[in-house]
Amino acid sequence: MSNDRKKSGFLINQRAFLKLYLISNIENGRWYGMQLTDKLKDEFKHLGYIPKHPEVYRALKELMDEGILKRGTLKKEDSHFQEITLYYIRDLEKALEYKKKMKLELERCEQLLKKALLDIYP
Amino acid sequence: MSNDRKKSGFLINQRAFLKLYLISNIENGRWYGMQLTDKLKDEFKHLGYIPKHPEVYRALKELMDEGILKRGTLKKEDSHFQEITLYYIRDLEKALEYKKKMKLELERCEQLLKKALLDIYP
Repeated sequence: MSNDRKKSGFLINQRAFLKLYLISNIENGRWYGMQLTDKLKDEFKHLGYIPKHPEVYRALKELMDEGILKRGTLKKEDSHFQEITLYYIRDLEKALEYKKKMKLELERCEQLLKKALLDIYP
Repeated sequence: MSNDRKKSGFLINQRAFLKLYLISNIENGRWYGMQLTDKLKDEFKHLGYIPKHPEVYRALKELMDEGILKRGTLKKEDSHFQEITLYYIRDLEKALEYKKKMKLELERCEQLLKKALLDIYP
């Protein structure tokens, strides 16, 4: 079983969930870390979920360690000294494979919650 | 925010989920610990979730600490010496309140997963 799932096989963990959103966002453009956290915070606020930057950073690091993402730097336009760190897809095939695996996992989790709602509140 | 939810407000944690199922099972009869674990294992096996006994035990303990469950003992019919531990609802109002709160939480989690499936796999 992958590290992306708790050993008991309960719901998908936050790290795996964030990795999935990071891949999906980065596929559609160049992003830097803080910007990604802010985007995720905005997107999930109405559902009571507020991803923290250190958790997003750990997810980015894991994706780089797995060879799915790579990091580059860009000089800030208004400065000769400051650089920002950008993330890109490094291996598109691996990225797609991860997304495919996680689709099954999200569907499994959805079934688990549906079952609970039906069992407990018939 | 209650201890039943991780601080970032991601998905419902396993402890809270098990507490909900334990209340629901115990409402419908007298149960002892190992029997509850076996029932839950059977119920969720097809969804890849295998609750472990120590986790079920901690959920039972938390429900007793919160005054929702109580524990009694029963002599085994075939023995003068052996006793088994049974669980009962102690405070039905508190039990119903917990179930009501967790319904909203399960629905919130379901929405979070639905959003991910729509966002990532349109």
